Amino acid sequence: MDKLIRLILSTSLVAFCCIASYADDWKPLFDGKSFDGWKQLGGVAKYTIKNGEIIGTSVADTPNSFMTTKKDYTDFVLEFEVWVQDGLNSGVQFRSMSKPEYNNGRVHGYQFELDTAERAWTAGIYDEANRGWLYPVDYNEPARSLFKHEQWNTARIECVGNEVQTFLNGKQVSHLIDAKPITGFIGLQVHGIGDKHDHAGFQVRWRNLRINTKSPKLSPPQGVYVRNIAPNTLSDSEKKQGWSFLFNGRRARGLKGALGDNAFSKSDWEIKDGALTIHAGSEAGDLISKKTYGAFELDFEFRLTEGANSGVKYFVSDHAEPGKEAKYLGLEYQVLDDKVHPDAKEGVVGNRTTASLYDLIPSYRNVHTRNVPLHIGQWNHGRIVARPNGIIQHWLNGFKVVEYERGSNIFNALVARSKYAEIEGFGLAEKGHLLLQNHHDEVSYRSIKIREL
Amino acid sequence: MDKLIRLILSTSLVAFCCIASYADDWKPLFDGKSFDGWKQLGGVAKYTIKNGEIIGTSVADTPNSFMTTKKDYTDFVLEFEVWVQDGLNSGVQFRSMSKPEYNNGRVHGYQFELDTAERAWTAGIYDEANRGWLYPVDYNEPARSLFKHEQWNTARIECVGNEVQTFLNGKQVSHLIDAKPITGFIGLQVHGIGDKHDHAGFQVRWRNLRINTKSPKLSPPQGVYVRNIAPNTLSDSEKKQGWSFLFNGRRARGLKGALGDNAFSKSDWEIKDGALTIHAGSEAGDLISKKTYGAFELDFEFRLTEGANSGVKYFVSDHAEPGKEAKYLGLEYQVLDDKVHPDAKEGVVGNRTTASLYDLIPSYRNVHTRNVPLHIGQWNHGRIVARPNGIIQHWLNGFKVVEYERGSNIFNALVARSKYAEIEGFGLAEKGHLLLQNHHDEVSYRSIKIREL
Repeated sequence: MDKLIRLILSTSLVAFCCIASYADDWKPLFDGKSFDGWKQLGGVAKYTIKNGEIIGTSVADTPNSFMTTKKDYTDFVLEFEVWVQDGLNSGVQFRSMSKPEYNNGRVHGYQFELDTAERAWTAGIYDEANRGWLYPVDYNEPARSLFKHEQWNTARIECVGNEVQTFLNGKQVSHLIDAKPITGFIGLQVHGIGDKHDHAGFQVRWRNLRINTKSPKLSPPQGVYVRNIAPNTLSDSEKKQGWSFLFNGRRARGLKGALGDNAFSKSDWEIKDGALTIHAGSEAGDLISKKTYGAFELDFEFRLTEGANSGVKYFVSDHAEPGKEAKYLGLEYQVLDDKVHPDAKEGVVGNRTTASLYDLIPSYRNVHTRNVPLHIGQWNHGRIVARPNGIIQHWLNGFKVVEYERGSNIFNALVARSKYAEIEGFGLAEKGHLLLQNHHDEVSYRSIKIREL
Repeated sequence: MDKLIRLILSTSLVAFCCIASYADDWKPLFDGKSFDGWKQLGGVAKYTIKNGEIIGTSVADTPNSFMTTKKDYTDFVLEFEVWVQDGLNSGVQFRSMSKPEYNNGRVHGYQFELDTAERAWTAGIYDEANRGWLYPVDYNEPARSLFKHEQWNTARIECVGNEVQTFLNGKQVSHLIDAKPITGFIGLQVHGIGDKHDHAGFQVRWRNLRINTKSPKLSPPQGVYVRNIAPNTLSDSEKKQGWSFLFNGRRARGLKGALGDNAFSKSDWEIKDGALTIHAGSEAGDLISKKTYGAFELDFEFRLTEGANSGVKYFVSDHAEPGKEAKYLGLEYQVLDDKVHPDAKEGVVGNRTTASLYDLIPSYRNVHTRNVPLHIGQWNHGRIVARPNGIIQHWLNGFKVVEYERGSNIFNALVARSKYAEIEGFGLAEKGHLLLQNHHDEVSYRSIKIREL
């Protein structure tokens, strides 16, 4: 009994010491009364201090403004509370920079988005004045309802190595893995309002900003989609979610040739510099996955040369005759330089442009009033989600551009007036292969990952 | 001051008396220990009593069983608690009957559904062994999540005159207005399980059954869709929701002829016996609504003669030239005897059958594994919902059979390969007329109601 009490006492003491020491690792980022350690960059929106809060107020005819820390940070956990007036867009920069040689010192880098609009992407990650949206919150649909309008919200940003997680009111919103760790300042944004003078005077308020640089740790991921930008890598979080490679930059172990003998000629489908490339004019067969898939999530990157054509097919049925050219048919995520290649003008209403369900459903290339970019000669991010309930989505560079229900009355009506009209049961196989198409143009793929749902 | 106290006292006393007298109006329907006042009808499922609960237990190879009150009831409010084992279907009959001359005494009448399946239609109204589903809970989508699996649920049924409301765990589920009041017994159903012997022994339990026949009142409606079966009537609840008539059985005040002079010849479109009928061989013009509508809900009943063809169009654009035959184009809810009329086999995958979006999207005539009926020579219930967000639904006899988004990429792709392909902006008008089509066959309409959303 006596021993037990001593054990309890000592355990409690250890626990207390740990908490105390962890609590000690946090430092206020703002002293509550002055901008000591901060400086303003960009536009001339007003920043004031009242009741321990930093208040940003929008001003017309000035670009995005930033109240930034003088110090740079690499690995840290940042917490703050934020209140945003409806109609204002704002954000918190982190790992950000302002350098004379980049856009005349324009502030750029990660931004924890604050979004009062209907889109509701608060806690998404935007790469300000650089790569644009890295983690649009459409990746994590339920998180769009977390933001509390004109109330205080608690926010948390975790940066460790090349991994970034954001949280809003206790729930994880974003999970980003970038190519490398970045060092930079933290900054409170007041978004420019252009010449909308009726939006002048709108406020965003921050309080209780604190940072932990001594023992920064990633919280256990809450199962949200992981956007991994680092080419041909698979993070621990992704492995835990069941992701594996079909092609990892060096080996295409999950793929085989679609011709009868399943070979794929290395001179036609070349693995080089971390990419799997089909060369122009090649008469090689397509590549297909060794396994077949029912419900799945497929992530890949693709790079088109000018005017090139390819495609990623799924639910591909396996009725090739041995020794003969395969006729692998399936639903196709179109991959095309649709500014140049003539097939983009065929079909109807754009249903042969990139990320369309080929010849059936055109990709929405304008969502949230933003044009979804397609970069020729650069890497683009494709994603196909086939849920167990039959709902299928195509994504392009972070945006959901096609959604449909396989086998629904609408799907059947579309197929019946497409080039697949005469094919019995087209696209309805319970499981099917994935396929990379050789359309005799030079196209590269990398980071081809799959998980079953 | 003295007066005030006396006033408060007397008011409290009055309130107390009212409550006491209202409470007195409730009587237990079950004495907690015996089946005095009850008798079993139909199959031989087991009914036992334990701890003040009635326990129904399923038995294989017997039809639907019912423990019924010996007394009949017309106007009443019934409350009970119910617990249902997952996998069992059950229900509570009310205003029900068993008569030798009807199906050899088969129990028939209203049933408060108890549904543990994925469909989740608990508290919907089914007309057992008679008209089938009167209030499927698809009419009230949010109510599908109210039922608590393998927990006690509180249920309430209100019958006053020809009006019936059901409630589950405090929320309204169904709102039915029938043609006339009905008198009948109350009965606790154990659904037959056929030869599924592994489902034998499944339980449903009821307790705290009480009834108020002295002061039955309808609760204030909670805004759910009102299904009004009484032809050409508009209840107070519907009026409060903003419904009004285009045709009420006597006058078609909301409609006009589609020809240049807007006349409609009474010999062609005849109003008789509460119906608006176009006669076979008529060369009269279509009828269109005087007003145009953007977001709306349209309710109507239609009766087809054998082999007949008609249609209800919406978002109809008004570009008729005066004095000439109108060319009113719009989206069409198809109305057709699709077993007989050849047009049902035209188009693709059934997109010209009744309730289809004509030539675009076939109606799902098989939902929830049940064939949606279409009765030739009898009245059918049509419904078109056009929400402000662009989502449009077609309903047939209680089932949602088409749903699509006007102007979406999928909609545009469907139109581009339909008979409307060449019509610029087809179906995209911001507002449009409603139209009843004369296709030279005899077809009748009644109870045509509209409300703007």
